[in-house]
Amino acid sequence: MGKERGRERWLTSQPWGLVEEPTLILDTRRAIANIESMARKAERSQVRLRPHFKTHQSAEIGEWFRERGVSAITVSSVAMAEYFVSHQWQDVTIAFPVNLRQIEAVSHLCQRAKIGLLFESVESVRHVAAKLKAEALAWIKIDTGYHRTGIDWDDLESCRSVARAIDQCPNLELAGLLTHAGQTYRASSSEQIRAIFHRTAERMNLARDGLAPTGEPVCLSVGDTPSCSLVDHFDQVDEVRPGNFVFYDLMQWLIGSCSQEQIAVGVACPVVAKHDDRREIVIYGGAVHLSKEFVYDAAGRKIYGGIALPAETGWTAMRSASYLAAISQEHGIVRADKELFATTEIGDLLVIIPVHSCLTANLLREYLTLDGQRMTVG
Amino acid sequence: MGKERGRERWLTSQPWGLVEEPTLILDTRRAIANIESMARKAERSQVRLRPHFKTHQSAEIGEWFRERGVSAITVSSVAMAEYFVSHQWQDVTIAFPVNLRQIEAVSHLCQRAKIGLLFESVESVRHVAAKLKAEALAWIKIDTGYHRTGIDWDDLESCRSVARAIDQCPNLELAGLLTHAGQTYRASSSEQIRAIFHRTAERMNLARDGLAPTGEPVCLSVGDTPSCSLVDHFDQVDEVRPGNFVFYDLMQWLIGSCSQEQIAVGVACPVVAKHDDRREIVIYGGAVHLSKEFVYDAAGRKIYGGIALPAETGWTAMRSASYLAAISQEHGIVRADKELFATTEIGDLLVIIPVHSCLTANLLREYLTLDGQRMTVG
Repeated sequence: MGKERGRERWLTSQPWGLVEEPTLILDTRRAIANIESMARKAERSQVRLRPHFKTHQSAEIGEWFRERGVSAITVSSVAMAEYFVSHQWQDVTIAFPVNLRQIEAVSHLCQRAKIGLLFESVESVRHVAAKLKAEALAWIKIDTGYHRTGIDWDDLESCRSVARAIDQCPNLELAGLLTHAGQTYRASSSEQIRAIFHRTAERMNLARDGLAPTGEPVCLSVGDTPSCSLVDHFDQVDEVRPGNFVFYDLMQWLIGSCSQEQIAVGVACPVVAKHDDRREIVIYGGAVHLSKEFVYDAAGRKIYGGIALPAETGWTAMRSASYLAAISQEHGIVRADKELFATTEIGDLLVIIPVHSCLTANLLREYLTLDGQRMTVG
Repeated sequence: MGKERGRERWLTSQPWGLVEEPTLILDTRRAIANIESMARKAERSQVRLRPHFKTHQSAEIGEWFRERGVSAITVSSVAMAEYFVSHQWQDVTIAFPVNLRQIEAVSHLCQRAKIGLLFESVESVRHVAAKLKAEALAWIKIDTGYHRTGIDWDDLESCRSVARAIDQCPNLELAGLLTHAGQTYRASSSEQIRAIFHRTAERMNLARDGLAPTGEPVCLSVGDTPSCSLVDHFDQVDEVRPGNFVFYDLMQWLIGSCSQEQIAVGVACPVVAKHDDRREIVIYGGAVHLSKEFVYDAAGRKIYGGIALPAETGWTAMRSASYLAAISQEHGIVRADKELFATTEIGDLLVIIPVHSCLTANLLREYLTLDGQRMTVG
């Protein structure tokens, strides 16, 4: 593009002409393709797709899932469950160890929809049993190697104790065992991620076998975006709960979960200053827009976001020699390649590919689609 | 405290009995003492205190400043300026390089209040000159060593060019030179921070001297919480703009800007699980509440927050052997000392001292005071 022509075009065309401050741009077509692809894979594997809605937190985006056959969802907080139940979602798992201080709100929710709660201790089950005023599904949270929380998959004794405590509570029905194999985020190859998925499924099956004497057969629920994106078939489990795949992001791309063409969100940020001596571009876009999540790329650079340019439909590929190198509350510092630096002017937009799209969407709380429609978060 | 008695007390007493999910607790008395102390120091130094309101973003907290003689403020975005102008603040500096894409909103603001804008290039001045429909104050942004943005303090030629461009714009009046010496956040001792303040003031004076031939004498504006907290007297400058000092936080405490007893905010987080084998407590409190900001302490531990306990008035001192070691979107993992682990039960609250209170307040958007009053952010 000729510079002057180019700049004029970006200032006025959809959606770029609408951007005054850091704005989360959503490529609807890509998001829908991501949903379709995951829904098809779940169907082929004959498992339930219970996508995690914490990534997008939007009732409108939720409808794109519903139109593709999804009827069960995952959320990470009681407030998010309330929001989606209000938008006619009737089967919602709150994938977070049940918070005893919200038991009243949880009781109300259970009167309105089928709610799944997570337990990993007898104390929590007993407390909930004493206070819950409606029926709920109970999932036992299993740790299959991530070591964030959950009962160790081979600690059958604890697992059985929790299952027995659930059995004794008339308001709780044991739904199954649930895990989040977040260790896939630390893997260094696709092979490793697939291996983690299969090991996770094996461990979950062993845990279920160990539970069998206590009652009916129960479901196994797993799911994280890297493994759900990379395995071809969801063997040996009943349910998958990936969330991030609807948008993907820089971290997922570096892990190898997606191609650049699958990343469905970028943050359009105005250029506010340039520094020739160090070839840096200052953008309006910082920690309150992107979060302070960072990754190291293959070259060992600490990166707060990838750099793309607005294009007529969507944005360009990321520029491999440019990156968001630092952020403070509102400022972002882009280390720019020579061509980017030379062709960028104050007032132009750069598109930042976020490191972690869930945190970015949570901060910006509004999407602007490529055709100029605005949609709010939660 | 006896465990059972203790727990019952925290569940019902103000403000702890009101806490169901991660909640930003504000110790009003401490915040007001911080404001008074800074206002008195500015008065003694005969400089204007123009506090940065991005930290608290609250009209109610703003009034505590007004009652102590503050009439001029700093903000970091046009939206924040609009909010505070709506709350009768009539002298507002938007301390961010002027964003050309918001010039229309800026024009409206300038019709309602005395607005200060930041410039560091002739292009920006010319663009604003062509579009601004009301009068504004112009500050030249100077880089005194932080290297985030601004004109190098010894680049007198660029400084003069920008000043001349401002002079030529009838709607802009040159207010002065402004810097943010954020390098104080990287200092390793109080002496270093004081030295940075004095070097900054010297450099600003040299820059002003270099400007003199272009017109009237102008003001010098500096300010960052570490140096404003640690110097006794604001010599050689006209205005200081610290922001974080109203609350302080773990980072400021580690830098040495404040004592623990000056930290005015903590995030009350429910305990949701415990892991005996690794002595970890899982709390409801993650990146969407605290941000992913972290610090390394003297022992080299990576810390996402300090750990205190609810007390009858406020919270206890931080426990030096316990810390928030990891966070994901909603989970926090506390490495607990033996006593803390033994005496903490699921359903209890821990008080997390945030690493960076500005980002935490921006995420939680509501304060709960120790006497149970709620106040919202922006």
